[in-house]
Amino acid sequence: REVITSIACYWVAIGNNDMDIRSIGNLPGITDIHRVTDSYKLVSGMWKLTPSSIPLGNGISIGGGNFTIMAGPCSIENDAQVSEVAGFLKSNGVFVMRGGVFKPRSSPYSFRGVGIEGLRYFHSICKLNGVLVVSEVMEPDQIEAMYPYIDIFQVGTRNAQNFSLLDALGRVDKPVMIKRGFSGTIEELLYSAEYVFSGGNEKIILCERGIRTFEKAYRNTLDLNAVPILKQKSHLPVVVDPSHGTGIRNLVEPMSLAAVMAGADGVIVEIHREPEKAYSDGIQSLCYSEAEQLFDRLRQTVSLKSTFGLS
Amino acid sequence: REVITSIACYWVAIGNNDMDIRSIGNLPGITDIHRVTDSYKLVSGMWKLTPSSIPLGNGISIGGGNFTIMAGPCSIENDAQVSEVAGFLKSNGVFVMRGGVFKPRSSPYSFRGVGIEGLRYFHSICKLNGVLVVSEVMEPDQIEAMYPYIDIFQVGTRNAQNFSLLDALGRVDKPVMIKRGFSGTIEELLYSAEYVFSGGNEKIILCERGIRTFEKAYRNTLDLNAVPILKQKSHLPVVVDPSHGTGIRNLVEPMSLAAVMAGADGVIVEIHREPEKAYSDGIQSLCYSEAEQLFDRLRQTVSLKSTFGLS
Amino acid sequence: REVITSIACYWVAIGNNDMDIRSIGNLPGITDIHRVTDSYKLVSGMWKLTPSSIPLGNGISIGGGNFTIMAGPCSIENDAQVSEVAGFLKSNGVFVMRGGVFKPRSSPYSFRGVGIEGLRYFHSICKLNGVLVVSEVMEPDQIEAMYPYIDIFQVGTRNAQNFSLLDALGRVDKPVMIKRGFSGTIEELLYSAEYVFSGGNEKIILCERGIRTFEKAYRNTLDLNAVPILKQKSHLPVVVDPSHGTGIRNLVEPMSLAAVMAGADGVIVEIHREPEKAYSDGIQSLCYSEAEQLFDRLRQTVSLKSTFGLS
Amino acid sequence: REVITSIACYWVAIGNNDMDIRSIGNLPGITDIHRVTDSYKLVSGMWKLTPSSIPLGNGISIGGGNFTIMAGPCSIENDAQVSEVAGFLKSNGVFVMRGGVFKPRSSPYSFRGVGIEGLRYFHSICKLNGVLVVSEVMEPDQIEAMYPYIDIFQVGTRNAQNFSLLDALGRVDKPVMIKRGFSGTIEELLYSAEYVFSGGNEKIILCERGIRTFEKAYRNTLDLNAVPILKQKSHLPVVVDPSHGTGIRNLVEPMSLAAVMAGADGVIVEIHREPEKAYSDGIQSLCYSEAEQLFDRLRQTVSLKSTFGLS
Repeated sequence: REVITSIACYWVAIGNNDMDIRSIGNLPGITDIHRVTDSYKLVSGMWKLTPSSIPLGNGISIGGGNFTIMAGPCSIENDAQVSEVAGFLKSNGVFVMRGGVFKPRSSPYSFRGVGIEGLRYFHSICKLNGVLVVSEVMEPDQIEAMYPYIDIFQVGTRNAQNFSLLDALGRVDKPVMIKRGFSGTIEELLYSAEYVFSGGNEKIILCERGIRTFEKAYRNTLDLNAVPILKQKSHLPVVVDPSHGTGIRNLVEPMSLAAVMAGADGVIVEIHREPEKAYSDGIQSLCYSEAEQLFDRLRQTVSLKSTFGLS
Repeated sequence: REVITSIACYWVAIGNNDMDIRSIGNLPGITDIHRVTDSYKLVSGMWKLTPSSIPLGNGISIGGGNFTIMAGPCSIENDAQVSEVAGFLKSNGVFVMRGGVFKPRSSPYSFRGVGIEGLRYFHSICKLNGVLVVSEVMEPDQIEAMYPYIDIFQVGTRNAQNFSLLDALGRVDKPVMIKRGFSGTIEELLYSAEYVFSGGNEKIILCERGIRTFEKAYRNTLDLNAVPILKQKSHLPVVVDPSHGTGIRNLVEPMSLAAVMAGADGVIVEIHREPEKAYSDGIQSLCYSEAEQLFDRLRQTVSLKSTFGLS
Repeated sequence: REVITSIACYWVAIGNNDMDIRSIGNLPGITDIHRVTDSYKLVSGMWKLTPSSIPLGNGISIGGGNFTIMAGPCSIENDAQVSEVAGFLKSNGVFVMRGGVFKPRSSPYSFRGVGIEGLRYFHSICKLNGVLVVSEVMEPDQIEAMYPYIDIFQVGTRNAQNFSLLDALGRVDKPVMIKRGFSGTIEELLYSAEYVFSGGNEKIILCERGIRTFEKAYRNTLDLNAVPILKQKSHLPVVVDPSHGTGIRNLVEPMSLAAVMAGADGVIVEIHREPEKAYSDGIQSLCYSEAEQLFDRLRQTVSLKSTFGLS
Repeated sequence: REVITSIACYWVAIGNNDMDIRSIGNLPGITDIHRVTDSYKLVSGMWKLTPSSIPLGNGISIGGGNFTIMAGPCSIENDAQVSEVAGFLKSNGVFVMRGGVFKPRSSPYSFRGVGIEGLRYFHSICKLNGVLVVSEVMEPDQIEAMYPYIDIFQVGTRNAQNFSLLDALGRVDKPVMIKRGFSGTIEELLYSAEYVFSGGNEKIILCERGIRTFEKAYRNTLDLNAVPILKQKSHLPVVVDPSHGTGIRNLVEPMSLAAVMAGADGVIVEIHREPEKAYSDGIQSLCYSEAEQLFDRLRQTVSLKSTFGLS
C-alpha cells in the first residue's frame, strides 16, 4: 500500500512471506527500508528511532524535545471570554488555546456548543494574539467548514475509534490530536493513529486522558503509565490531559508535574476565570492564579527533566 | 422541546421549577402528561409502563412479548454465501439476517467489508427469502445510500456515543439497533437511545454485547445483568449478542439460553458454514448444526419463560 | 509432589523435560496417568472428564447432575431467626442454609457477626431440621472451633487468595466453597482451588459472585460467562451467588434462572423475613414469597435444562 | 469505642444524634475533639491536618516531609544476596531493604519463599549495615515469630482486606505498610488502615501498587492519582511501588519520578544483581547501575518538589 504524505512517500507491505528486504533496499529511488513486526507500521518506533516533531504553525512545534502547554476553557462561551483567555495565555507564554465549539454530550438535552460561528471568532481573536487553536471535530462533514479556523483538529475520546473520521483526517494537512478512548487500549490508540498516517497525514499527536476503572474516587483514572509505553512503541509525541483525566481540580497540578516526569511532550489543561460558573466541567478547571503557578512549576520540572535525557 | 415521530408528538420540558403538571394535562389536545425524574426522558420506563413493540417490517416485530432471533455471518463475503445463509435461516424459521458490509476494524490494514455493492445483493437475496436485513452503519453520510437496502440500522459498539450518527438516525423512519459501548454504562446506552428518540425516531432496539473488564479468559464479559436493568429502566426491547459478547464459540449456546431467562427480547448470533474459514470472527461463529440446535433450545426456553410472566 | 486425599493418592510431577508417560503408567500400583498442560493440575478437566460430585452430608451432594439450592440470611441474627428460616427451607425442599457468623466488613465499625456462639445454635437448629450449614471462615485459627458446627466452609471473596487459609482448608475433610475474588480471574480461582486440592481436600465447590467493573448501575457485575468456562476447564461444581453478584433484589430471580441455563450446579441466595430490617445486605435479599416463586421456577428451568444434556 | 495507642488515647463515637461537641470538649482530661464526617475516623485528614511522620527505627522516619527510598529483591534468596544488596543500599544512602520470605503465589507449585529462617539472616545482616527490614506477613500466626526480625510489617495486595490480619497488626507496636488491593478502592484502603489504627497501632504507611484494568500493555495500572487523593483524605504517608505497579523494568524510573511529583512520601523498588536470574519478578527489577541512576534522579526531583511546598 502506497502512502503519500506532505513529507514523504511510504510503501507499506504486509504479508506472511519471509523475504530478503535488502533486495528492495537496493532498488533505485528507495531511501530506506525496515522490517516492522508491530502491526501498526507507520507510527511504530521500530523504523523511526528519533521522536517526531510536529509543526503546529507560528513556528511552534510539539515533540522532539519541546514541552508544549495548551490551555483554555472546556467550552467556548463568547468572544469576551476568548479575548480574556487568549490574552492571559499570551502574557504567560502559552501559545495554544483549547476550547470546544462542538461538544459531545451524553445527554441530548445538555449544552452542545457554540458551533462553527463560535469557532470563527475563537480563531480570529487567537490569531490577533499569536495563539493557535485546538478544538474537537466530531464528524467528517465538519472538517471542511472548520478547516480555515483551526490549527489542530482534536479527535475526542468517544470518537477514538470512529474510523470514518480518522480516515477523513488522514486526507487533511493540519495536525490531528487523537485522544485515547476512555476504554481504549494503548494498541488501539496506535492503530487509530495508523489510520490517520496511512491516510496521508503524519502530523499526529497522541493524548492520554484517563481510562475507566472500578475506582470512583475521581472521574477517570489518568493512566500515566501510557506515556512511557507510547514513547517506547511509537515516534509520535504524547500529551496528557489531567483535567479530564482526573476530573478533580486539585489533582491537576500534581498529575501535570507527574506527567512531565513520566515523559510527556505536553499537557492540555482546562482553565476558567470562575470555574464554578463554567458552562461545562467547572469542577475540573483551574482559575487563573492556579494556572500561573502550574505553568511556572511545569517549566521548572521540564527543565530538571531535560537534564536527565530520555529515560 | 418538541419531538415529532411517526407515531406521536411529544413535548419534553426540562427545568428546575416545581409545577403542578395537572395544569398542563388539562389543556386541550394534550393526551397525557408524566413527570419523569430519569434524565433520559423519552426512553424511560417511567411514563410508558408497557414494553414497546418495534415493527421491523414483513409483519415481524420485536419486543412486546415476542422473542426474535437474528443470525448470519460477521461479514458478508459474496452472493453465494448470502443465498445459502438466507435459505438456511428461512428453513429454520428465522427471519432476520445479520451481516456487516462496512466493517469497523482496529487496524487500517484489515478487511473492511464488501461495501454498498455487497449490501445491495445482500438485501435483494434476503428479500426473495422473506428475510430482513440488519447491518452496521458507520457514519451519517452512509445512511442515504444504505436506506433502500436495509431493514434495521445497526450502530456498532465503537459508535455508541457517535452523537452525529445518532442524531442523523433520529431523522430516519427505520428501526435502529444500538449496541452498548464496550465500556459504556447502562445510563449512557439509554442516553444514546434518547438521542435517536428525541430526533424523531422511536423504533429503537438496545443491544448488550459484552463489556471490557480485567478478565482475559474470554474476549468480552457479556453482561447479562444489563438485560433486567434495561427492561426495568426503559420500555425499549433488549437483545443480546452472545457471539461478540463472549468471543468463544462454545459459550454462545449457554449464554443465549441464559439471556432468555434474564429477560432478553431476542438474540443476534454469528453463524458460518465453515467458521474456521470466515473472513472475520470465525472463532465465535456457530456452524449450521450448532445453530439449529441453538434455535430449537432457544424456542423451548422462551416457551418456559413465557409461562413465568415478566419477572 | 504427593497428594493424599480421603479418596485417592495423587502424584503431581512438574518439570520441563519431555518424557514418555507410559513408562510410569506401567509401574505396579499406578492406576492411571495423564499429561495436564493446564498449570492447575488436580482441578483441571484434562485428566478427569466426568464432573465431580461433592457429597455434602445427609445424602445430599452437589455437582454430577444435581442442582443444589442454598439460601438464608446474609448474617445470622438470633436463634429465632434460624428456626424460622430453617423451617421455611425444609418445607420448601431446600436443605442447605447459608448465614454469616463472622462478617468481613470494610469498616471496623460495622456489625461483625454473632461469632462462634451463633454458629453453635445455627448448626444445632439446622440439624433438627435436616438442613446443612454453610458459613464463612476468615482465618486458619477459626477452623478448629468451627469444625464441629459446620457442613461447608465458605471462603469469601476477600480471602480468595488468602493462601494460608486455603492451605489450612486443604487439611480438612469437609467441603470447601471458594468464592471468586471480586477482581479475581478465572485462572486465579482455579489456582486457589488447586491449593485446597493439593493440600489433600478434594471436596471443592467454586462460586461465581460478581466482579468489579466500571458499571455503577448495580453493586457487582455477576459474570455468568464464568460458569461455562469453569465447567469446561475443571471437573469441579460451580454455583452462582446472584444476591452478592448483583446486589439488587429484583435481579436475583432473572439472574438465578439465567445461571441455570449457563450451566450452574447450584445457586446460593439471600432471603430474609423482612429484607428492609436485615442487619446487612437487606437490599439484595428476597422475602419468603419471592423465594418460593424462585425455588419453583428454578426447578422448572433445571428440568428443561436437563433435557438438553451438557452443552 | 476507646482506642489506646502508644501515642495517645482516642475515643471514637459513632451515632446519628446531633450533639454539641463542645460539651465534651470542656470535660476535664479531654485534649481535643473533632467532628469527622468521613466514615474512616482515625486515619482521616479531617481531624489531623498535619501529615503524620512514622518513626521506622534507627532515627529514620517516613512522611512529614521526608522522602524514603526502600529497595531490594522481590524474594530473599540466600545470605550472600542479602549481604551484597544491603551493602549496595548502604553505600547509596538507602536505609530500608525490602525482600519477601513468605511469598503469596497464585499457584501452589511456585517458589514460596525462604521462610522464617531466611528472615533471621535477612535481619541480622541488615542490622550490621544499619539497614531496616520490610517484609510481608501473610497471617496472624506469623506475627509473633517474625516480630524480632522485622522493622516494618508489609500487608500484601491480596491481604489488603484480610481483616483478621489487620486486627492482629493493630495490636503490634511496629510500623505496618498496607498495600492497596489490586482491585481495592481508595476508600477500602483507608478502611483497612482504620482497622489497624482502631486496634491500637497508629504507625501506618499506605502503598499504591497498581490496579487491575482492561489494559494489557503492562502488568498493572499504577494509579498515581491515588497519591494526591490519599494525601488529601488522610494524614498517613503514602509510598508507591512502581515495580509491581507496572511490571515493566523500563517504566520503573519514569513512574518513580512521576510519583515524587504526584506527592508520594517514598518509593519501594525491586532491584537485583542479575534481574534475568531472579527467583521471581526479574522482569520488573532494576540492576544496580539502573538503581543508582534512579536514586540520584529521585533525589534531584524530591529537591525540586520540596521547593513547591504541598500542592
